[in-house]
Amino acid sequence: MTPAHLMAARGKQNRSRVGNKWRGFLQILGRVTLVTIVGAAGTFWYITYKDRNPGPQLPLDPSKKILVILGSGWGATSLLKGLDTTDYNTIVISPKNFFLFTPLLPSVAVGTLGAKSILQPTRYVARHKARQVSVIEAEATNVDPVNKTVTFTDTSPLRPLEPTRTIPYDYLVYAVGAETQTFGIPGVKERACFMKEIGDAEQMQARFLDCIETAAFPGTSEEEKRRLLHMVVVGGGPTGIEMAGELHDFLEEDLKSWYPELHPYVRITLVEALPSVLPSFSKELIAYTERTFKESKIDILTGTMVKGVSEGSVRLKPKDGEEHDLPCGLVVWAAGNKARDISRNLMAQLPDHQTNKRGILVDDHLRMLGAPSIFAIGDCTATSYAPTAQVASQQGAYLARMFKLIAKRDELARKLDELSKTSDGKDLEASKSKETESLAKQIERIRLKPFHYSHQGSLAYIGSDKAIAELPIFGREWTSGGVATFLFWRSAYLSTLFSLRNRALVAGDWMRTKFFGR
Amino acid sequence: MTPAHLMAARGKQNRSRVGNKWRGFLQILGRVTLVTIVGAAGTFWYITYKDRNPGPQLPLDPSKKILVILGSGWGATSLLKGLDTTDYNTIVISPKNFFLFTPLLPSVAVGTLGAKSILQPTRYVARHKARQVSVIEAEATNVDPVNKTVTFTDTSPLRPLEPTRTIPYDYLVYAVGAETQTFGIPGVKERACFMKEIGDAEQMQARFLDCIETAAFPGTSEEEKRRLLHMVVVGGGPTGIEMAGELHDFLEEDLKSWYPELHPYVRITLVEALPSVLPSFSKELIAYTERTFKESKIDILTGTMVKGVSEGSVRLKPKDGEEHDLPCGLVVWAAGNKARDISRNLMAQLPDHQTNKRGILVDDHLRMLGAPSIFAIGDCTATSYAPTAQVASQQGAYLARMFKLIAKRDELARKLDELSKTSDGKDLEASKSKETESLAKQIERIRLKPFHYSHQGSLAYIGSDKAIAELPIFGREWTSGGVATFLFWRSAYLSTLFSLRNRALVAGDWMRTKFFGR
Repeated sequence: MTPAHLMAARGKQNRSRVGNKWRGFLQILGRVTLVTIVGAAGTFWYITYKDRNPGPQLPLDPSKKILVILGSGWGATSLLKGLDTTDYNTIVISPKNFFLFTPLLPSVAVGTLGAKSILQPTRYVARHKARQVSVIEAEATNVDPVNKTVTFTDTSPLRPLEPTRTIPYDYLVYAVGAETQTFGIPGVKERACFMKEIGDAEQMQARFLDCIETAAFPGTSEEEKRRLLHMVVVGGGPTGIEMAGELHDFLEEDLKSWYPELHPYVRITLVEALPSVLPSFSKELIAYTERTFKESKIDILTGTMVKGVSEGSVRLKPKDGEEHDLPCGLVVWAAGNKARDISRNLMAQLPDHQTNKRGILVDDHLRMLGAPSIFAIGDCTATSYAPTAQVASQQGAYLARMFKLIAKRDELARKLDELSKTSDGKDLEASKSKETESLAKQIERIRLKPFHYSHQGSLAYIGSDKAIAELPIFGREWTSGGVATFLFWRSAYLSTLFSLRNRALVAGDWMRTKFFGR
Repeated sequence: MTPAHLMAARGKQNRSRVGNKWRGFLQILGRVTLVTIVGAAGTFWYITYKDRNPGPQLPLDPSKKILVILGSGWGATSLLKGLDTTDYNTIVISPKNFFLFTPLLPSVAVGTLGAKSILQPTRYVARHKARQVSVIEAEATNVDPVNKTVTFTDTSPLRPLEPTRTIPYDYLVYAVGAETQTFGIPGVKERACFMKEIGDAEQMQARFLDCIETAAFPGTSEEEKRRLLHMVVVGGGPTGIEMAGELHDFLEEDLKSWYPELHPYVRITLVEALPSVLPSFSKELIAYTERTFKESKIDILTGTMVKGVSEGSVRLKPKDGEEHDLPCGLVVWAAGNKARDISRNLMAQLPDHQTNKRGILVDDHLRMLGAPSIFAIGDCTATSYAPTAQVASQQGAYLARMFKLIAKRDELARKLDELSKTSDGKDLEASKSKETESLAKQIERIRLKPFHYSHQGSLAYIGSDKAIAELPIFGREWTSGGVATFLFWRSAYLSTLFSLRNRALVAGDWMRTKFFGR
């Protein structure tokens, strides 16, 4: 070989080494990708398979105490998730047999999400517990705090032979929520759409599409079109704001494509009685929301009271103005809570302790005043906390921890009781009194800490792919608004959803809406 | 270098060459995969984007003829898809503003698919046509074949100021379908669930879940549980068979997981008045279906008439037996069609030509006998074809081709007419008569071929991931049944769905059901 040949060979070798490294890298990358994809798919399949095929459960045990949970909302479901069911015979009674992820309800109303995606069957949660949990689809009609019984009745179209039954409880968790507050304003109950249950969202959607189709009907006058396509949202809290934002998205993104001739007639108005929307948020974020709404052409009427809802219009009374009618096609009512009949009934049975008309009064441990075997959580209570999902779900998780301790304490108390009953032989007295002392000490050592709420921040979607957030980080309030916050909003909601199933469904729905519209 | 060195080097080179080839192959494979994925995702995004953002359309043109289409089912939608709208001012009138993929309705009823996945807004189709198409959500109440007008009325809860209007037409396509035939059997209309509209599927689902919850209610007797969980499907055609199959899937796959204690009480019965189910299929496939149903524990009662449906039971009369009551929780009625009121009304206006009570009589070109400007297609007609989606959609596609030719012929006729009207100058007569002759010849050359139905085969899903199929291939009937056929059934339905949107949604729903249950 000549030196030239050698040089050329060396050069080739060098290039080949670089090439080898590069190829090696590509190979490894390829393998890693493959393993990741196969692994992730396998795990996903395994988890969902396990979810769909829960194993056998412990049967009910007559020696255990009976824990009755009324409700299937944020508080009740959070409790059920965290509860160790081996300690109790658990019975869940609720008129709906599923948990509803209420913050995404406005998204269902305009069709961004499917109704199924944001609900989770209560039986699904119950089936994954260690011990069997009875889930009864029925409406609780009465609680007797003295005799410790609950009466419930099946109100669905198809009734069993004995639709009303009464069962005893040892502990009762009262988490029935609240109903929509209409302040007795005429026409609200009959004509406005609420935003609390899945049926409300479906009803609103039907009404909304009917408005559009009627506006598109041949011969409808300009004025009538303007009226039909004017949507009024009452309530400037997060629900009202998100509803207005979602309506705007639908009208801008979908109506414009499929009913281009109707687009110029569309208008959204948000009405709030207080001087500002979103009173729980900071001033900056309120200003940001107002700015975004202005760009989106959503009118905000603050300091304005609703005096009535009639067919085709809503009667308004601004703070410094005359009462007048505002023609509109649809009124969405998202303005506060009031106690349910059963709650008022229960409070009336304990008039010395329950003196707040707003809701049930509880002590630091969430025990109902006057009825220590009843724990009340969520929107049915009258506390210093806002009636939010966050509060209810923290209260539910707190109670799950408490019930673990209560079970321990009850078990020790039972042993102590047994011991005192069987004290007849004299020779055992010494060891017994020792045991009694030790049990009493153990019971004393179980301390039930009072409930403490830790605020994780507030979030709201305001339309046009923008959201606002207020988060306490390192003891400081961080506020942010915009498209990045919107992505944060989506991921926060996704991670808050209770099950992988819901997460995948909601993510799938968001993709669907992105690709195919609503 | 020693020979040994050389040998070693040669060996290395060889190995390296093989290694290079292998690496090269991997690299190419990796690149091809990447390009394919990116390309497919891009194309998918582009198509869905174009779909969501249709461009501007031609406005309505008063010089064009008015084509009114009544209906939004298989026939009407197939016609609208194929129609060249530049030739006409097209108006679609239907009480529902979407097309429904009816063969998958049983899947919606048990929750395998979402309702949204199998419907496509008619406006979506209309917005992608070259010229604007008016879509009116209203029920046609009268057709006047003499004065050539249609009267329709908005029957939705929200009515326009003038809900009833009458418009003229030049051509009318009558594709209103049929309504469910109850044969006047008492209780069917009030208590049985139909399987024709999306509302029927939702109603059935609600009733079905109510049966399960009532059976799960505490204190329900054994006998009552057995009754509530006994589902009766009436009608042994493809709809009835698929309904029974889907019900079985739900009860086996989902109820077993979430209500294990109820599973032993479940029973499904299929009732058919004829001596055999699926009369249009071959004997082998009928036997296969019967075998599969037997394995799935679905009872088949052939040769059995339904005499009445009461609350909690269905009255049966077997061919060689006594009338008796069969206790059950739910009755699904999938037993035949009858003419709608508007069709009977229309036929009554042409008593000399329309003599068949079953439906509208048409000629070879699908023109209504006695009213040559009306074309009737689909289930509202009385023809030798079965009332299937396949027939209606082929008829719609045929009419789309016909209307292209008719437009051409009408245009030539208009020219001819103009020419004959302006014949006053003598010197032009020669050339004119020549032109007239040429036009007449051209008109004559446009031959409207009669409609010819080409059977593409029959398919039905029979539960447990099995389907049956009968396909005419090379002039021979191929029959097959089983799991492979089920996969074929799924892909056939996917490809028959009208839009990419529906295809992706249905495929997504099938995946969802596989992973998360119903």
